[in-house]
Amino acid sequence: MAVTSTVPLSSREDLSLAYTPGVAKVCEAIAADPALVHRYTWVSHTVAVVTDGSAVLGLGNIGPAAAMPVMEGKAVLFKQFGGVDAVPICLDTQDVDEIVRVVTALAPSFGGINLEDIAAPRCFEVERRLAESLSIPVFHDDQHGTAIVVLAALRNAATLLERKLSDLKVVVNGAGAAGVAVTKMLIAGGVPAADVVVCDSRGIIHGDRPDLTPVKEELAGVTNGNGLCGSIVDALDGADVLIGVSGGQIPEEAVAAMAPRGIVFALANPTPEVHPSVAARHAAVVATGRSDYPNQINNVLAFPGVFRGALDAQATRITEGMKVAAADAIAGVVADELHADAIVPSPLDPRVAPAVAAAVADAARRDGVTR
Amino acid sequence: MAVTSTVPLSSREDLSLAYTPGVAKVCEAIAADPALVHRYTWVSHTVAVVTDGSAVLGLGNIGPAAAMPVMEGKAVLFKQFGGVDAVPICLDTQDVDEIVRVVTALAPSFGGINLEDIAAPRCFEVERRLAESLSIPVFHDDQHGTAIVVLAALRNAATLLERKLSDLKVVVNGAGAAGVAVTKMLIAGGVPAADVVVCDSRGIIHGDRPDLTPVKEELAGVTNGNGLCGSIVDALDGADVLIGVSGGQIPEEAVAAMAPRGIVFALANPTPEVHPSVAARHAAVVATGRSDYPNQINNVLAFPGVFRGALDAQATRITEGMKVAAADAIAGVVADELHADAIVPSPLDPRVAPAVAAAVADAARRDGVTR
Repeated sequence: MAVTSTVPLSSREDLSLAYTPGVAKVCEAIAADPALVHRYTWVSHTVAVVTDGSAVLGLGNIGPAAAMPVMEGKAVLFKQFGGVDAVPICLDTQDVDEIVRVVTALAPSFGGINLEDIAAPRCFEVERRLAESLSIPVFHDDQHGTAIVVLAALRNAATLLERKLSDLKVVVNGAGAAGVAVTKMLIAGGVPAADVVVCDSRGIIHGDRPDLTPVKEELAGVTNGNGLCGSIVDALDGADVLIGVSGGQIPEEAVAAMAPRGIVFALANPTPEVHPSVAARHAAVVATGRSDYPNQINNVLAFPGVFRGALDAQATRITEGMKVAAADAIAGVVADELHADAIVPSPLDPRVAPAVAAAVADAARRDGVTR
Repeated sequence: MAVTSTVPLSSREDLSLAYTPGVAKVCEAIAADPALVHRYTWVSHTVAVVTDGSAVLGLGNIGPAAAMPVMEGKAVLFKQFGGVDAVPICLDTQDVDEIVRVVTALAPSFGGINLEDIAAPRCFEVERRLAESLSIPVFHDDQHGTAIVVLAALRNAATLLERKLSDLKVVVNGAGAAGVAVTKMLIAGGVPAADVVVCDSRGIIHGDRPDLTPVKEELAGVTNGNGLCGSIVDALDGADVLIGVSGGQIPEEAVAAMAPRGIVFALANPTPEVHPSVAARHAAVVATGRSDYPNQINNVLAFPGVFRGALDAQATRITEGMKVAAADAIAGVVADELHADAIVPSPLDPRVAPAVAAAVADAARRDGVTR
């Protein structure tokens, strides 16, 4: 990547405008009215892509230097699809207090904060505290980017199968960053909370388990209205939808025991929880996170448009309404051309980000979170 | 400014290289050998331009948002003259420990740290602690950028007047960030420490003053070998060189009392300590910080080339030798075309940054501070 000037700088006059003495007038104007920083500087169109390098792709805790290629790639995608200028920030700390302190200190430099590849459960607290204290959008993409695209895909899959979200029994396999956010997003999008069952590596999450983190306890209190116990195999028995965001493997028998005309999103990368060709024997719609199979559930469908819309609307935060609007917009792009192998747009579809941006900006205004 | 991609991203293949799954291979390589971050990411050519907004231009403590235009302008100059990709970071803290902590946490994201517009004496401790703890170049431009260009200008002024730096009595008026660094740089460049007299707003700095900060005490112990006391007027009596980096005004009589064929650099902006036309009545060479008078002493002659050279050499810090080399290189660009109205190159002279970069990189290798 490169940083480039958007104004010429070749004459003494250019220099005296872009730098001393001309720049002083701009500084004084912003000192008098800090909101002008959005009009007069690049803050209005920048996002910091912040990681602590603790949960990078499927590679795990590889640290800040080794995380940089992902953040740089992400920044390129931000620009390519959303026209957002993104700066990779790889932090040399994995302490929650320190991450919050550092990002808070950085915040005046950016129009938004995209958290990335920060391990659960740390990511939940980091995002919550930053969202509470900062007046710019804060968005943990591994949670909400994934969740938005999953909701979009599930909407279209349900439409295709002539089902309603409110009638679906959903199993979410994985209770990390993505699993928790997907669960909340599906509920916000219309799946009854009681009909969602979440599994972690030890099985179904329910209120009687003594080993739950606070975040999983919260899930236990809301989901699994029938009080199911047992393993992922037990959870899938008769379920309509499987959403895998874990990396673990799921046996074919378990998928076979799902209700007829089921939906399987096996999103682990690079190895889906169940191979898509196996899942297709039992389910009506199958999606993965991979580019070499149909129906790629990829965050790039969400984050460029989400931030573009939030920045355009000068949103001070990202609401549930903005995320649901993003999902609806993604789903809407291919709503007239639905097919079991095309429930989401291609990651390269140029219609997606503008549609998401417009929907997110509208939702921000509707939710009253604009500056 | 904008962030742009230096590689195409238009096909599914581009996407799988720049992002998943291709990027994972790059991450794994860097995890195995962290030095590869300089080969495979933009870290090798980026600099963070970091401020706390406490001493912005002559405007003072206007805070991080209002400081952004200066940092953005600076970043544009970094690119224009040094080909360095610079990112403005305006911090929402003015606490030394916090600044050090935040910049330390950020450091893996950048190839160098340019500190900017941080008030004295805080700036000294921030720079010292960061330079000690980080293994990338740390450079407070208000100190060292100014000091480098002043040394370059003084070298050429002395050559023009057929004087040696070792024979000059120098008065530095101002003991803030720039004054302290200028004093140290002149001494490193060949002016005898005993023949430098530094004044702050209360007059000449000498060992008997009870009101000195640690940094000024250090100056008192090294400079002013004759133990002068009194005001700037007393200091200038018979001096060869006045370097004003204070903003205060100096009466004409004081300049008139300097030794014949004197040198006056009145660098306060926008109002020089003594008007250049007044100074010219008494001094043989006059320079200011302004673009509308001859001999503009401007940091832009130094910082783009300094960082370009440090990054090219993969320097782990900025040594005195690298700074002196930068000054010599700036002076050298116009050494064959010296004139009382042209002792330094124009800020737009395209020969400067490459010459500075080459000299700084050589000095880094000579000083053994390359990676």
